[in-house]
Amino acid sequence: MDILMDAQALNAFLAADFPQMADSVSVQAVAPDRLVARLRVDARHLRPGGTVGGPAIFALADVAIYCAILSRIGPVALAVTTNASIDFMRKPEAGRDLLAECRILKLGRSLAVAEALVFPDEGADPVARCSMTYAIPPKKPENSPL
Amino acid sequence: MDILMDAQALNAFLAADFPQMADSVSVQAVAPDRLVARLRVDARHLRPGGTVGGPAIFALADVAIYCAILSRIGPVALAVTTNASIDFMRKPEAGRDLLAECRILKLGRSLAVAEALVFPDEGADPVARCSMTYAIPPKKPENSPL
Amino acid sequence: MDILMDAQALNAFLAADFPQMADSVSVQAVAPDRLVARLRVDARHLRPGGTVGGPAIFALADVAIYCAILSRIGPVALAVTTNASIDFMRKPEAGRDLLAECRILKLGRSLAVAEALVFPDEGADPVARCSMTYAIPPKKPENSPL
Amino acid sequence: MDILMDAQALNAFLAADFPQMADSVSVQAVAPDRLVARLRVDARHLRPGGTVGGPAIFALADVAIYCAILSRIGPVALAVTTNASIDFMRKPEAGRDLLAECRILKLGRSLAVAEALVFPDEGADPVARCSMTYAIPPKKPENSPL
Repeated sequence: MDILMDAQALNAFLAADFPQMADSVSVQAVAPDRLVARLRVDARHLRPGGTVGGPAIFALADVAIYCAILSRIGPVALAVTTNASIDFMRKPEAGRDLLAECRILKLGRSLAVAEALVFPDEGADPVARCSMTYAIPPKKPENSPL
Repeated sequence: MDILMDAQALNAFLAADFPQMADSVSVQAVAPDRLVARLRVDARHLRPGGTVGGPAIFALADVAIYCAILSRIGPVALAVTTNASIDFMRKPEAGRDLLAECRILKLGRSLAVAEALVFPDEGADPVARCSMTYAIPPKKPENSPL
Repeated sequence: MDILMDAQALNAFLAADFPQMADSVSVQAVAPDRLVARLRVDARHLRPGGTVGGPAIFALADVAIYCAILSRIGPVALAVTTNASIDFMRKPEAGRDLLAECRILKLGRSLAVAEALVFPDEGADPVARCSMTYAIPPKKPENSPL
Repeated sequence: MDILMDAQALNAFLAADFPQMADSVSVQAVAPDRLVARLRVDARHLRPGGTVGGPAIFALADVAIYCAILSRIGPVALAVTTNASIDFMRKPEAGRDLLAECRILKLGRSLAVAEALVFPDEGADPVARCSMTYAIPPKKPENSPL
């Protein structure tokens, strides 16, 4: 279970390929099957009442799980989310960043399954949980004439 | 099954309370238990390869279902998504708006369940399906001293 | 969009390969992309209070969607459910059969996505909605030496 | 975070109220926010190819999470599953029991959210993950005239 991309490599990948995301989401730590990413909360993520909106939490979980998979298979830009299930459990406070802690549960040849718990920075109770499936495009043989 | 907010009222509500969203999502049509909303796709929603990203599709479905519920219960700003499940089935093309067609399946006193199919404008095959649960805050009694 | 297995063929397949299921679930009608299956409710499906239990509703939706896919691709016994999301919305009455109405939303080479609404027989309001993803095993080439 | 029902109390509750389940599912261990339950796999749970069927895994997760919640709130027979999301990740072997390890993520007044990982007995890789929401009926005030 080697790590093919570390936090620095993943953040460089995000900056190059997902500039809108790299603006607010960054990878903090990577270990085999685990990854932590941070959402720097700003005015764009807020909803009435000063809470972080569901779509911003979804985006954090999506990027975090994507990076967790890339950390293991390398920069396969075409891996795509096929399914996501998310429970919003508590209202995040406006003034705090959010951290997504991901775990890979399955890394198959064509499908990967992972889950994330989203916590407020320095908070104990998760605001959301999310599980996602990614489809991984088939590898071309190294010396393929195609 | 009365409609308490029509498309015009819902778009005014979005403009006032969700200015970031109102910029790109608008309600097109409202009927009892049904609603159609449009995402005007622009550069902010795109991913590498020119496709619309998952978080943008999630945000469209979330706003559309929220508006479908408000159309029936009125402007209850504190209704919150508690669960969402989404399947991304086909890659949307970059140059086309997306339409979410919502249907309310249950509208209880404390929980509402609805689903949305997301289609490319003038397209036949859905790019995503989504089901969501919303928690509806309890109504205060009409003459409550609070 | 041809139908490769009709209701009779699907029920024969269930009787041969899923005898425990064929006992209580049967396919009622098949059309392209649509299928209706019935759960004959008996004492085994009931929970305290005389309602039909969640696992029995899940099993009905699973068999119905499986058959909807087989109706289109033929008797591929190795198609497997990879993901399911289900909302239980109303309490079913004990004395009534349940009907699952399925619709195929995507039928790709390796993944199929379908949804089902579960209604009480002759009832108007759905008791549950379910969406599922099935992985379809790759076809062997017709003249493959394997 | 007190435990109101231990493994023995939960198994007695299952035997009394869910006799069909108590036959094959039993609670093995209970700790605050955690619970382990076992499915004694027999012929009824098997599918063609000798694997344990999806509905049997769903039933195990449902009972396990239900018991995890009861361990904290006491024998509230009317708590009901409102939403479930399940990923089937690996094929379970026929000859092995399955263990569900549950964790409560939120225990609110009206909604509880929990997740379960399902492992083969003595196995390292999970065959399924599941998250569920339960609706908890409102408590009557102790001295309520109703």
